[in-house]
Amino acid sequence: MNVDFNSLEVGYDIPAAPGMAEADIQTPCLVVDLAALERNIAKMQNFADEMGVRLRTHGKMHKSADVALMQIAAGATGICCQKVSEAEAFARAGVTDILVSNQVRDPAKIDRLARLQRLARAIVCVDDINNVAELSAAATRHGTTIECLIEIDCGAGRCGVTTTADVLAIAHAIVAAPGLTFSGIQAYQGAVQHLTSFEERKAKIDVAIAMVRDAVDALKAEQIECTIVGGAGTGSYAFEGNSGVYNELQCGSYAFMDADYGRILDGDGNRLDAGEWENALFIFTGVMSHPKVDVAICDAGLKVQSVDAGLPVVYGRTDVTYIKCSDEHGVITDPDGKLAVGDKLRLVPGHCDPTCNVHDWYVGVRDGVVEQLIPVTARGKAY
Amino acid sequence: MNVDFNSLEVGYDIPAAPGMAEADIQTPCLVVDLAALERNIAKMQNFADEMGVRLRTHGKMHKSADVALMQIAAGATGICCQKVSEAEAFARAGVTDILVSNQVRDPAKIDRLARLQRLARAIVCVDDINNVAELSAAATRHGTTIECLIEIDCGAGRCGVTTTADVLAIAHAIVAAPGLTFSGIQAYQGAVQHLTSFEERKAKIDVAIAMVRDAVDALKAEQIECTIVGGAGTGSYAFEGNSGVYNELQCGSYAFMDADYGRILDGDGNRLDAGEWENALFIFTGVMSHPKVDVAICDAGLKVQSVDAGLPVVYGRTDVTYIKCSDEHGVITDPDGKLAVGDKLRLVPGHCDPTCNVHDWYVGVRDGVVEQLIPVTARGKAY
Repeated sequence: MNVDFNSLEVGYDIPAAPGMAEADIQTPCLVVDLAALERNIAKMQNFADEMGVRLRTHGKMHKSADVALMQIAAGATGICCQKVSEAEAFARAGVTDILVSNQVRDPAKIDRLARLQRLARAIVCVDDINNVAELSAAATRHGTTIECLIEIDCGAGRCGVTTTADVLAIAHAIVAAPGLTFSGIQAYQGAVQHLTSFEERKAKIDVAIAMVRDAVDALKAEQIECTIVGGAGTGSYAFEGNSGVYNELQCGSYAFMDADYGRILDGDGNRLDAGEWENALFIFTGVMSHPKVDVAICDAGLKVQSVDAGLPVVYGRTDVTYIKCSDEHGVITDPDGKLAVGDKLRLVPGHCDPTCNVHDWYVGVRDGVVEQLIPVTARGKAY
Repeated sequence: MNVDFNSLEVGYDIPAAPGMAEADIQTPCLVVDLAALERNIAKMQNFADEMGVRLRTHGKMHKSADVALMQIAAGATGICCQKVSEAEAFARAGVTDILVSNQVRDPAKIDRLARLQRLARAIVCVDDINNVAELSAAATRHGTTIECLIEIDCGAGRCGVTTTADVLAIAHAIVAAPGLTFSGIQAYQGAVQHLTSFEERKAKIDVAIAMVRDAVDALKAEQIECTIVGGAGTGSYAFEGNSGVYNELQCGSYAFMDADYGRILDGDGNRLDAGEWENALFIFTGVMSHPKVDVAICDAGLKVQSVDAGLPVVYGRTDVTYIKCSDEHGVITDPDGKLAVGDKLRLVPGHCDPTCNVHDWYVGVRDGVVEQLIPVTARGKAY
């Protein structure tokens, strides 16, 4: 390593530099196995192609324009994101087809959304008829057109309407509103994605599919076509993909994977990380203290991950276990005394989305060597 | 509001602009009540002054050079932080007395620490005699001097030595090592800070104080003086401050406060947020959907906070309750239907440190008006 990549004189800091060996990467940081990422991206695109549906990958997971552009180069039609500020960051970086799979209600944000149309197709979700006039006024003011989906709450219990009658009423309002285009339905069942049982997930998605089909059919009966019928996640995409109603899948986590998704079971009773998807995202951590013979302390705490879905898992090791997380430290049991100060470990994060959101960089590694640093373009863009 | 603060043309985005009314701030973001922050800073400094000890505030909580400089201007001797990259960020921003209250073991980080001495006093903690030669070699290589504290594990069960014999052995090694100065003891009891009971916290800190006193006395008997005997947090500072042994307090959370610290009790049985410390930090959130009569959905989810210490609390309201957090949304029960789409609420975060670490900006508010945007200087600096 001959790059002074953290020099005070240069005044910037990055956790690694291209060409560096993985063992020299400064910890803690996020490491992405580029080959595994590429395989995951290709595999989900192949599934979507075989199902005859579009793949609109969810950018809220990785928040990286570079990863989004890899997914689009592989065949994805565009991306989803959740906030206008995320959409702005992706659009500035060259992503031209973006669905804000969420409501936008603040006047300043609606104004930004209307202006964003100059850079990219930016579709938005509506679940309240009062939002239609707000969006229409902003689009008219800026001379742009905003495409709208109606969000259906198909079981997650968050945003969205729950009846076909509401869908029809809002759809007619959108069709009639200047500056707006009705583009279809948003129906993501977020509450089923992490259920362990394949059958339980399938049963709940069947309910969602029935709700969506009823709405799409009712709209069609009134000559309103849905260009987009979107939803699905890494825990359910095969169900929506085979539904004959959904035509866009919005999976995100499959690209990186995490410990929580790894634990759920597929139709054959196998864990999702046992072959279906590879772990491509790791918290790279170093052992910084070994205060007891059977306890090691690593440098990956709450500042580099979210533990809302459980603790990280030490990748490829059954002899050591990450058992406790504080702000700056992780406690690892090491009953056989296998770890030493300076050892570096890959951890599979419990939950990829909020973990990615803490980091400025992904360190892209191939065959044990740093190939590139990938900025987390939309990190922190929550507003 | 006449500032186009999120213009695509300008190409940057911030959640607010100076002069804006609080109600116009784009959500979700972090709002800091500047007057409450100033009162908290002054109060802790007064306590330290009365106790006759130095205050070295913990910068790992706010990660902001501006807040650190406010604390130093009020009388703090300097700051603590946990990582070399944090120390670099603070030093570049003008903080000149920094304790890395943690071990530094990676060769590249040790090298950076040795070079950092050119910008600031940067003290480090040692808990392994093998670290002494590593630090000494780097200081010698760069012609700098590194001050070392020996970390005692006084009950937290993380890093640190547990016997006075170990303290003495490492101290002698530091004294003998070229390029190093022995400066004292680091003894932070992190495991007691959030215990609800005042008596329970006191009993455990009494144990810590006894361990520290034993080490300091043993060092003194061998003519080794401790310039710094540091530790303490917002849940325990009065104990260490009155110990007669500790001479530096390292409290962090008191400046912003959070829901978890708010719940613990003082010696009179009152909650810590009932008068001792004011909530100065808030997640500012907007209601974006009201899908059921008694349920509102807000825009503050896991991307803007850490829920490791519990969910956020709606500030100043007993009629509505934040009950569930997903990646991008919060579910708020609203039994009396008091909330409407567009309403904005202040949430007290469950845990301030990792919540601050997700954000690029604090929006500083005084009397309902945005006064300044404060960058979270060392955000994401974990390596």
